[in-house]
Amino acid sequence: MALLRSYVGGRWQTAADEGVPLHDAVTGEEVARVSSKGVDMAAALEHGRRAGGPALRELTFHQRAALLKALASHLREHREELYALSARTGATLFDSKFDIDGGIGVLFSYASKGRRELPNDTVYVEGAVEPLGKGGTFVGQHIATPLRGVAVQINAFNFPVWGPLEKFAPAFLAGVPSLVKPASQTAYLTARLVELIVESGLLPEGSLQFVAGSAGDLLDHVTGQDLVSFTGSASTAQKLRAHPVIVRNAVRFNAEADSLNCSVLGPDAKPGTAEFDLFVKQLVTEMTVKAGQKCTAIRRAFVPAELLDDVAAAASERLAKVTVGNPSSEGVRMGALASLEQREEVRRSLKALLSAGSVVFGDPEHVEVVDADAERGAFLSPVLLKGDPERAEPHEVEAFGPVSTLMPYTAAEQVIDYAARGHGSLAGSIVTGDADFARDVVLGVAPWHGRLLVLDADDAKESTGHGSPLPQLVHGGPGRAGGGEEMGGIRGVLHHLQRTAVQASPSVLSRVTGHWVAGAPRAEGVHPFRKSLAELKIGDSVVAGPRTVTQEDVDHFAEFTGDTFYAHTDPEAAAANPLFGGIVAHGYLVVSFAAGLFVSPEPGPVLANYGLENLRFLTPVKPGDELTVTLTCKQITPRVDQDYGEVRWDADVTNGNGESVAKYDVLTLVAKS
Amino acid sequence: MALLRSYVGGRWQTAADEGVPLHDAVTGEEVARVSSKGVDMAAALEHGRRAGGPALRELTFHQRAALLKALASHLREHREELYALSARTGATLFDSKFDIDGGIGVLFSYASKGRRELPNDTVYVEGAVEPLGKGGTFVGQHIATPLRGVAVQINAFNFPVWGPLEKFAPAFLAGVPSLVKPASQTAYLTARLVELIVESGLLPEGSLQFVAGSAGDLLDHVTGQDLVSFTGSASTAQKLRAHPVIVRNAVRFNAEADSLNCSVLGPDAKPGTAEFDLFVKQLVTEMTVKAGQKCTAIRRAFVPAELLDDVAAAASERLAKVTVGNPSSEGVRMGALASLEQREEVRRSLKALLSAGSVVFGDPEHVEVVDADAERGAFLSPVLLKGDPERAEPHEVEAFGPVSTLMPYTAAEQVIDYAARGHGSLAGSIVTGDADFARDVVLGVAPWHGRLLVLDADDAKESTGHGSPLPQLVHGGPGRAGGGEEMGGIRGVLHHLQRTAVQASPSVLSRVTGHWVAGAPRAEGVHPFRKSLAELKIGDSVVAGPRTVTQEDVDHFAEFTGDTFYAHTDPEAAAANPLFGGIVAHGYLVVSFAAGLFVSPEPGPVLANYGLENLRFLTPVKPGDELTVTLTCKQITPRVDQDYGEVRWDADVTNGNGESVAKYDVLTLVAKS
Repeated sequence: MALLRSYVGGRWQTAADEGVPLHDAVTGEEVARVSSKGVDMAAALEHGRRAGGPALRELTFHQRAALLKALASHLREHREELYALSARTGATLFDSKFDIDGGIGVLFSYASKGRRELPNDTVYVEGAVEPLGKGGTFVGQHIATPLRGVAVQINAFNFPVWGPLEKFAPAFLAGVPSLVKPASQTAYLTARLVELIVESGLLPEGSLQFVAGSAGDLLDHVTGQDLVSFTGSASTAQKLRAHPVIVRNAVRFNAEADSLNCSVLGPDAKPGTAEFDLFVKQLVTEMTVKAGQKCTAIRRAFVPAELLDDVAAAASERLAKVTVGNPSSEGVRMGALASLEQREEVRRSLKALLSAGSVVFGDPEHVEVVDADAERGAFLSPVLLKGDPERAEPHEVEAFGPVSTLMPYTAAEQVIDYAARGHGSLAGSIVTGDADFARDVVLGVAPWHGRLLVLDADDAKESTGHGSPLPQLVHGGPGRAGGGEEMGGIRGVLHHLQRTAVQASPSVLSRVTGHWVAGAPRAEGVHPFRKSLAELKIGDSVVAGPRTVTQEDVDHFAEFTGDTFYAHTDPEAAAANPLFGGIVAHGYLVVSFAAGLFVSPEPGPVLANYGLENLRFLTPVKPGDELTVTLTCKQITPRVDQDYGEVRWDADVTNGNGESVAKYDVLTLVAKS
Repeated sequence: MALLRSYVGGRWQTAADEGVPLHDAVTGEEVARVSSKGVDMAAALEHGRRAGGPALRELTFHQRAALLKALASHLREHREELYALSARTGATLFDSKFDIDGGIGVLFSYASKGRRELPNDTVYVEGAVEPLGKGGTFVGQHIATPLRGVAVQINAFNFPVWGPLEKFAPAFLAGVPSLVKPASQTAYLTARLVELIVESGLLPEGSLQFVAGSAGDLLDHVTGQDLVSFTGSASTAQKLRAHPVIVRNAVRFNAEADSLNCSVLGPDAKPGTAEFDLFVKQLVTEMTVKAGQKCTAIRRAFVPAELLDDVAAAASERLAKVTVGNPSSEGVRMGALASLEQREEVRRSLKALLSAGSVVFGDPEHVEVVDADAERGAFLSPVLLKGDPERAEPHEVEAFGPVSTLMPYTAAEQVIDYAARGHGSLAGSIVTGDADFARDVVLGVAPWHGRLLVLDADDAKESTGHGSPLPQLVHGGPGRAGGGEEMGGIRGVLHHLQRTAVQASPSVLSRVTGHWVAGAPRAEGVHPFRKSLAELKIGDSVVAGPRTVTQEDVDHFAEFTGDTFYAHTDPEAAAANPLFGGIVAHGYLVVSFAAGLFVSPEPGPVLANYGLENLRFLTPVKPGDELTVTLTCKQITPRVDQDYGEVRWDADVTNGNGESVAKYDVLTLVAKS
C-alpha cells in the first residue's frame, strides 16, 4: 500500500504531499502513508449537502434500510481480506472479528430496526397528537426530518471498521450523508472498508465520503445543519466541543470518550461461586481483548475487601496463561498495541497509577512474546494493579491498554460512591447472584453510566460482556465519558433528525404527517376494505350500525366465553361496583360486535387483522345501548419486500348519545393490488 | 423594595454590597437594587445536591406532579400582586397574563402530564425489552434516573415568571433541584415569585434556589451531573457554551436564543380571504405583545411579491391603531421596552436593518405615548420595514423590540430557502388555506425550526398564535436559535434524566425496573385477581385452560357477532388466503375465550378491565386447537388520589404445541385494599 486516498466530491483523491508513514503494530514495517493535504474540506461538505443529502431524502426509511442490509451482505463477503489487514493493527483474529463482524452486525441491526420500527416514509412522526383547544380544531404533533447537512464522523484508532460503521448506519438510515475521518494510525483498514463500499455501487453518491489524514480546516465549515461526532480521548473531545465554529453555530456535537469504567463483584460471590469465576474471567478478557484498547474496558475492578486477595490470585493465574505475540500466530491471545507511541503513553499512565497502588501481575517494562520482536512491535504485558480507592489516581488516570486496577470496598453505598468518582463512564458491570444487590448498585450508579451489565449464572452463557456496545442499546456516557449517546436503536437515528412541533387543524396536520388525525375529513363511499393498498387513502371510512346490545347478548356472551365476571352477570353485585353501578356488557363483546359491523365478508384485498392497539373502554355499555362504529384509514405502510402492506385503522365505537364507548387502532394486512 | 435577596442554602441572603439600581421601564424610577456579592455559589450548588436532590428523589413522579399542581393553585391565588409588579417592567395586563398565567399554566400542564404519562415510581423505564440472545436469558432495556446535580437555570429579562417556571417544572418533575438566576433587569418580579413559592412551604427544601444578581463564579462549580439551561441572546449563549468548566465536564447545556423567526403568507391568501386578515392581525400582535420582546416574535414576514403592498397597507392601518403608553392605563395596547438601554440596542439594530430596507410604518426616533413620558420611559413605536430578502441583514440582524421586516417571494422553494437563511429559528408560521402549500413549506423548513404553526380559517379561533410556546410541544430550535430543546411534555423531563441501558437476565431486569419481563419468574397460587393492590406482586400469575376451539364455536361466533369474514366462514376461500390456508378462528374469539379462562367471577379487588394494548395475533388458531392462557402481573401503578390503581397484565395465549397465538397487555383497575 502506498499513500492512502480520500474519497471526496465523488472521486478518489490523492494528497498533494508524500504523507506520513503508518507502521505495522507487530513488525514496525511501513504499511501505508497518509495525508489529506490538498483535500478541499469545504467542497467535501458541500458535496454531501448538495448530492448525498438530496439523494438520501428521496428514499424512504425502509428503502435506506434495504440498502444497509445489502451493504452488510456485501461486506460480509469480504471479511477475510479485512481480517488480514486488521492483523497489522496488532489485532488477533478474535479482536478483528469483534471489530469487523461487529461493524457488519450494526448494519444488519439497523436494517432490521429500520424496517420494523420506522415508517416506510420520509417523515418520522413522534408521539401522540396533542389537543391544543377544547373545540378540537387546533392540534399539535411532533415530526422529525433529516438535518440538511453532513454527519462528520471522527473516529478512534482502535476500531477502524466498527467505529465508522456504528456512526454511519444510523446517519444513513436517518437520511443524512456521512463524512468519515478515521484516526490516522489504522486508517489503512478504514480506507479499504470504504473502497469496498464504494466499489459495491450500492449507496447514492455523496452519502459516504472519506478523509484519510488530518481533518485540516474541516470544522471551520460546519453549520447548524451539520453534526460532528467524535470518538477518542477526553482531551480531544474537549478541544472539539469548544471549537469556535461548533460553538457559534450550535452544531450538534457528540463525544464518546475513553472512561474509567468499573466492574463490581457482589459480596455474595465468594470463591467457588459461578459469579466469582465470571468476574475474574471477564476482567481478564476485558484487559486483553484488543490489548485493552477499548473505551469500554474495565479500568476499575471493585471487590469486597475480604475477597481482594482471592480475586488477585485467580486473575493472576488466568493472566499468566495469556500468550502475547504476533496476532496471526496460533495460540496467541493478545497482540500488540496500535503503535510504539501508544505503548509509551500507557507506560506513562502506569507510572501515575503506581503512585497510588502496586503491581499484582505483569511487568510494565517487559513481556515474553511469540513470533515477534518485543521491541519493534508495540507489545506490552497485561498489568493488573491493586489500588487505594480513596486516592484520586485510580479514578482519574486512564492507561489505554491491558491495564486494570483492583480496589476493595465494604458496602454497597461505598462502592456506588467509588464508581461515581470516575465522573461518568460508558459502561459498568455488576457481577452478583444477589438481585437486590444488583438493583441497589444499578440504580445507584445509573446516573453516571450509559450502559450497565448485570452478569450472573443465569445470563452468562448469552451475555455479550462488559465491553461490547450493542446497536440496540445506547452507547455513551455522561461527564468524563463525553456526555454523548450513539446507537440505542432508533434513538441513534433520531439524533440526526430535527424534531419540530407542528400546530395546525387536524386536516392540515394529516396532510403534513400522512397520518389521519381525529377531526380531519373522512371520506365515505366504497367500503374501504374493498380497496387495495394502491386505491386506499388516508381518511377513507365506513360508518356501520347501529346494533343494540341486549341483556340476552350479555348473558349469552358470558355463557359462551366463560367470562362470568360479576359486573356482567350479577345485577346486585354489579350495582355495587364503583365504576359501573349496574350490569355492563363485556368489553370484548363490544369490540366483537364492532368487528361484526365493520367487516366486509367477501374475499378482497384485506388479508388479515393482525393486531390491535391502544384499546380503551371509555363509557360502560349497558343492555339496551345502541352501538355504532366508525372505522377510518389512519396510516398506510406498504412493505418494500412483500405484495402487501400494513394498514392502521382508527376505530371509534359510540353509543346512542354519541359518546365514545371504546376507541382503538385495528391493524390489518392489505394486498397492494 | 430595597435590595433583592437571594434564596440559597435554605435561607434568604442579602448581598454584601449596595447593589445596582433597577428602573421602572415606564417611569424610570428605581424599583429595587440587585447584587449577588457574597453569595457562595459553590455552597448553593452543594445545598441543591445534598438537600434538594435526595428529598426530591424520595418522591415518585406522581407525588412530584401533585406538588406542582398544589404550587400552581397557590400561585394562581397571588396573580394580582404579580400583575402589579409586572406593569413596572413595561408590560400591559395582557402581556402580564401571557407571562404569569402562562407560567402557572406550565405547572398545571406538567402536573397533569406527570400523572398521566409517567409511572408512580422513581425510575422511568423507556422503550421495549430488547432480546440480546436467542435463548431468552439475556435481555436489555433502558431506564432513566435523575441526574444527581442541580439544574442551573439562567433566564432572560422578558419573561420573569414564565421563564423560570417553564424550566423549573420539568426539572422538578424529573427529581432534579433548580437554581434560578433571572436577568437582573426584571429580577424583582422573579424574586417575588420565589418568595411566594418559598412562603407556600410546599416544596422540599433545596429543590428551588434563587440568585438575584450576577451569576458570579457559579459556572466554575458545575459538574457532569449538573445541567445549565440558558435563555437569552445568541452571543451570551455562545459564551456559556464555551465556558471551560462546561466544556471540560461535558455539562448538559441547553440554549434558547432569540432567533429571526419567520411567518409566511400563502399565495392563495389574497386580500379578502380569512387568511390574509389572519396573517396581518398575527403580525401586528407579534410585533406589539411584550413590545416585541419575545424570542419567538415574527422578525421576517414573507409575502407573495404581488401581495406586498396590500399587506403593507393593511398592517400599517392596524399598527396605527395601537396605542402606546403607560401599560396600566386604559386603552394602552403596547407598553414600554424593559429599559432605556434596551431601546438603544433596538435602535442600533434598526439602523443596520435600514441599510437593506425602508420604513413602512413607524418612526424609530419618535412615538406618541399615553400617560407617560416618552423619554423617561423606554417607549418605542412599532416599526414595520420592507426589506430585500437577497441581502443578509434581514435574516441576521435582530431588533429585539416591536420590529418586523416584510419581504417578497415568488415560489414555495424560494421562501423555503429564505426561511433557512435565518440559520435556525424557535418558531415559524405559515398562513394559508392551501393544505398542499402548507405541507410543502412545513416539510421544507422543518429542519430549521423547533415549532411551526399553520394558521388558517379552520384553526384560527383556537390557535394560540405564532409566538406562544406550549408545555406540550418542544420549545427550542437549531443553529442560531441555540440548538436547544425545552418542554415538549415528558421530553423536557427526560432531558434531566440519565438514560442507561441495563443488560441482565429477565429476572434481574424485573427487579431493577419493577416491571415484570417475559422470562422472569412467575408465582402461581391464589388467583391474582383475588389480591388487592397491597397484596399483589410483580410476577403473580395464573395459568388457565386448556379450552378447545371447535368449528361450532367459530360458526357460532360469526353468526352471533356478524363477523362473517370469509376466513372464518368459507373453507374454500379461506384456503386461498395466503396467510391462513384454511378456516381460522376470529381473533376476538380467541381473546374472549382467554378472558373466559382467566377471569375470577366473584366480586373482589379487580374493578374493571379498562383497556388492552399491543395485541398481536401470532399464529392462526384453527378449529380443534386447544387454548391455554397465562396471565402475569407486569406493572402496578397505585394512583395517588384514588383508592385504586392500575395493573397491567401480560397475557400469553398458547396452542397445544406451546406456540403463542396471541400476546397482549390487559389493563385493569384494582382496589388498593
